[in-house]
Amino acid sequence: MSARRVCVLGGGAWGSVFALICRDAGNDVTVWARRAEQVDEINAGTNRAYVGDVRLDGIRATTSLEDAVSGADLVAVAVPSGSVRECAAAFAPYLRMDASVLSLVKGVEAGTLSFMTDVLVDALGCSPQRVLAVSGPNLSAEIARHQPTGTVVAGSDAERAGYVASRIHTAYFRPYVGSDIIGAEVGGVVKNIVAMAVGACTGMKLGVNTRSFIINRGLTEMARLGVALGARSETFLGLAGLGDLVATCSSELSRNFSFGYRLGQGMNVSEALEASAGTVEGATSCPHVLALAGRLGVDMPIAQATQDVLDGHVDVETAALRVFRSPRVTDGVDARAV
Amino acid sequence: MSARRVCVLGGGAWGSVFALICRDAGNDVTVWARRAEQVDEINAGTNRAYVGDVRLDGIRATTSLEDAVSGADLVAVAVPSGSVRECAAAFAPYLRMDASVLSLVKGVEAGTLSFMTDVLVDALGCSPQRVLAVSGPNLSAEIARHQPTGTVVAGSDAERAGYVASRIHTAYFRPYVGSDIIGAEVGGVVKNIVAMAVGACTGMKLGVNTRSFIINRGLTEMARLGVALGARSETFLGLAGLGDLVATCSSELSRNFSFGYRLGQGMNVSEALEASAGTVEGATSCPHVLALAGRLGVDMPIAQATQDVLDGHVDVETAALRVFRSPRVTDGVDARAV
Repeated sequence: MSARRVCVLGGGAWGSVFALICRDAGNDVTVWARRAEQVDEINAGTNRAYVGDVRLDGIRATTSLEDAVSGADLVAVAVPSGSVRECAAAFAPYLRMDASVLSLVKGVEAGTLSFMTDVLVDALGCSPQRVLAVSGPNLSAEIARHQPTGTVVAGSDAERAGYVASRIHTAYFRPYVGSDIIGAEVGGVVKNIVAMAVGACTGMKLGVNTRSFIINRGLTEMARLGVALGARSETFLGLAGLGDLVATCSSELSRNFSFGYRLGQGMNVSEALEASAGTVEGATSCPHVLALAGRLGVDMPIAQATQDVLDGHVDVETAALRVFRSPRVTDGVDARAV
Repeated sequence: MSARRVCVLGGGAWGSVFALICRDAGNDVTVWARRAEQVDEINAGTNRAYVGDVRLDGIRATTSLEDAVSGADLVAVAVPSGSVRECAAAFAPYLRMDASVLSLVKGVEAGTLSFMTDVLVDALGCSPQRVLAVSGPNLSAEIARHQPTGTVVAGSDAERAGYVASRIHTAYFRPYVGSDIIGAEVGGVVKNIVAMAVGACTGMKLGVNTRSFIINRGLTEMARLGVALGARSETFLGLAGLGDLVATCSSELSRNFSFGYRLGQGMNVSEALEASAGTVEGATSCPHVLALAGRLGVDMPIAQATQDVLDGHVDVETAALRVFRSPRVTDGVDARAV
């Protein structure tokens, strides 16, 4: 058995590209996927639907969780957020006692309003120190083309986080170590909501000043929520905060951005959802984020305006004006209201 | 004499558009410009070279500093950074005792390595509380078209800053109040250096992940320098930090970005400077910023790599790889080294 065995759960775009990174960093990599056809494809060195022409040679795939997880000292979870709890419960029996679990998933669980690392800790019944989050400006298609990319490995155990970072470091993928898991989780979720709002402004033909304003005030909302949940405000200056936010808001490929863009151009919500061909994560998580914010007394006017548009309570122009014309306040993360 | 009299010193793009904002906010506005032809043009309601078709009706212009400054309780300085000291010394005799002075200028003075509000305080011999900085994602062409725009009015006297903000608040221009002048000044200068680096990466056909990485690590450098100079790290999360940086790095109109872009495409430094048709502020300020950083023991690897390219010591690809391949460190503003 290899001393550097990594298991990646999920054969979508991010799972496949993360497997590539791990392979290139010198690990022995197994991908678990649910569908046998996908497993066969990966074992034949391709995964066309998700990574196009990029070859997955040297990466093994299996439909057996036991086969994938047993023996791996690094288990990366890249399944849809709604499946994380079920998946974790299913692989828990095969997890090595010393293995680190990496969450590549962004989301808030419906009902519990828990972030993904908390769901993993809960479902695995393991120490929180063993569960880490990977987050940053990580468009998988660019990583697959070896474009220089930075990320954050956030874990409460600094030694473990440093070790995990060294296991996934390649010439094109540069992990920074962080200790603020909550900050990374909040950043990964709220960015999608802000990307919808930035998309809407772009669809309304507003310019760079407005875009930058929304990104900036959106980051402030993200930081306020994070700080209320126990994150450090500095995290939001980093790759998992601002970095990921800027990338998501710059990518026309982002489903959240294009969904907002269509709303800004005048489509109604159901037309825009239909045109999006897939889950718009920001639209799914927005009510959960607002529920958390409400519980903590955190003001999130951009998220609230976005939700009001999603609920059909206001049109997108009215919502934008409401954000822009709210009372003037001080700048910065500690501002009391916006 | 009007109770709301504003004087704007400088009839370039930002000065002219700031005069428009002040007019629309209900002030009686006088612009001072050096050249008589420009003054005549503004008095005829236009300033074609700087604001195109936008009308300047109701704004008065003069070549007399005494005429412009006397009686104004708000004096906005929008002359080139190299002329600020001389201009301030010339208008000091006409400045009302209670007037607030607003710096719209970004830059570091050669020799003294002082930021512009310090130059103004020094040259005017006035209390630092009377000198404020205005900074944010404020592309003047977009403001002239009434695109929703936010800015920061930073002053050490909160009451004065709040009052100034209320005097320049319009439906399309939204000032936030800040107390961190140093942070606003550092942000306004370092953003141009980062924009050159982002432009270079874009010229080398690197993607959104890399762009976001450089913006992010550039912001970290900016914040480290700022904190060493006495700024608060939170300021860099705001419109005068991140906000201005994102706008500058997103604008293909930015001379700093296009200069870097040309270097990335393979032009040498003198070709790229020649093609830039005007001052590349980032190239001018980079050695001053590095001198300040050196004095304070602050590490600024992106600025240093940029300067090494400007000095012809390394080519742009080597410089980019050096930034990307430096030792792995922790994420966030308090990282010791990058």
